Amino acid sequence: MPSINYAYVNGKFLPEAEACVSIFDRGFLYGDGCFETLRLYGGRLFRPLDHFARLFAGLRLLEIESPFSPEELRAVCRALSRWNNVTDGVARIYRTRDSIVVTVQARQFAPRELRVIISNVTLPPFLSRHKTANRLAYLLAQREAESEGADDAILLNSHGSVVELTTSNLFVVKKGQLYTPPLADGPLPGITRAVVLGLARQAGLRVYELSFRPEFLTNAAEIFATNSLLEIAPVLSWGRPGSVTRRLQTAYRQLVREELGL
Amino acid sequence: MPSINYAYVNGKFLPEAEACVSIFDRGFLYGDGCFETLRLYGGRLFRPLDHFARLFAGLRLLEIESPFSPEELRAVCRALSRWNNVTDGVARIYRTRDSIVVTVQARQFAPRELRVIISNVTLPPFLSRHKTANRLAYLLAQREAESEGADDAILLNSHGSVVELTTSNLFVVKKGQLYTPPLADGPLPGITRAVVLGLARQAGLRVYELSFRPEFLTNAAEIFATNSLLEIAPVLSWGRPGSVTRRLQTAYRQLVREELGL
Repeated sequence: MPSINYAYVNGKFLPEAEACVSIFDRGFLYGDGCFETLRLYGGRLFRPLDHFARLFAGLRLLEIESPFSPEELRAVCRALSRWNNVTDGVARIYRTRDSIVVTVQARQFAPRELRVIISNVTLPPFLSRHKTANRLAYLLAQREAESEGADDAILLNSHGSVVELTTSNLFVVKKGQLYTPPLADGPLPGITRAVVLGLARQAGLRVYELSFRPEFLTNAAEIFATNSLLEIAPVLSWGRPGSVTRRLQTAYRQLVREELGL
Repeated sequence: MPSINYAYVNGKFLPEAEACVSIFDRGFLYGDGCFETLRLYGGRLFRPLDHFARLFAGLRLLEIESPFSPEELRAVCRALSRWNNVTDGVARIYRTRDSIVVTVQARQFAPRELRVIISNVTLPPFLSRHKTANRLAYLLAQREAESEGADDAILLNSHGSVVELTTSNLFVVKKGQLYTPPLADGPLPGITRAVVLGLARQAGLRVYELSFRPEFLTNAAEIFATNSLLEIAPVLSWGRPGSVTRRLQTAYRQLVREELGL
């Protein structure tokens, strides 16, 4: 890249290539921190307050204080998106016990369809509900998917219930009804998940947050994955992209445009 | 401290205070790496090859290459222990997907006795057998212990079996026989654990690697914890320090002295 991208690290704005943290930072030593990944549209963050609230909830669990208010976090992201000249891209906020790091990078998002496997990696209980820096279970599941020629993996909890994909929530459409694992089963409380649940209800769909096992997927009409970067991505391994998925994709993009005034 | 302590970071020896890693290091982002903590006696590492073998096993799981042979790792530790003037202390080797960091620091080890609780944090399956940088489950259990005025916590697996303490293996003495959870239940394959099992057998004790639940602890005669830094530390919450623990402590120290020629 020709121009320098800046990162925010513990009070300083530094070129990314020079930005570093101590070898004693507990984020580095133990994965002792939480992060958020937000999408920027036209230079604006989508639902930043929801992301910040989730970050603060994770930090409360770890008893880590946030050095910033939501408004201050927003201001740091805004500064970086201007200096780095990012209109469409990704902001990442990472708070460890010892550091805070924010990056904003340009990225293009082509529509994606996912081929997935059922992972053999069992999700750890309890921590899966937060976006911590302990990511090995997800990384191992992702690698397992790639080694089988797939794009992503579905993770189960220790009771054998479907929880989520490695970086996204999972939805299933059957007979025009929408199903997704309940938060009690361990999925991350996705910002996009919540938006999609709301849009589906508005569209008159019956929506069930319901525990299910992998067998439930085999006769699905449609399956899709949601996260802030992917938005809504069809999963091709059992169902096929269909009218419910398309309708929700359209409604989601319209909501983003309206909310951000694009 | 008056003198500068050096660390080894990716090919350079740097003062610890200046030693840092990129904010994009996957160890920092995801806890994507493995580490080892070794004790130095009289400037010499105890059982370094066992520690390195365990490190390499963890790295194989994560598909991370080691940039160093055991002999090279040993040479880095030796250089640091000389420059940092460490006779008794701790060496820490940490390999992430992107970095390798080695520190050697002086430390005194006073004999310790531990008061412990049974943690409510369930150990994640599978990863617990390796010393990865995904340490949050252990940190949360440790904090739980401290909030209850204890020194450490006993962690159970998802089947309810006792696995280990947050940084040590657990042994129970009943009727002169020694019990410890089997590796299949998830404990870290401790270097000290293996030494103690050997010493106990040599001493003519009956030794059982056996699954057990917390109830098994309540009528224990003696309980102790083992790791490379603690060596063998009595656990006071149920049993009391007794002759088996003392005998093994003596045998362990004698083995260390003999092996290192101290």
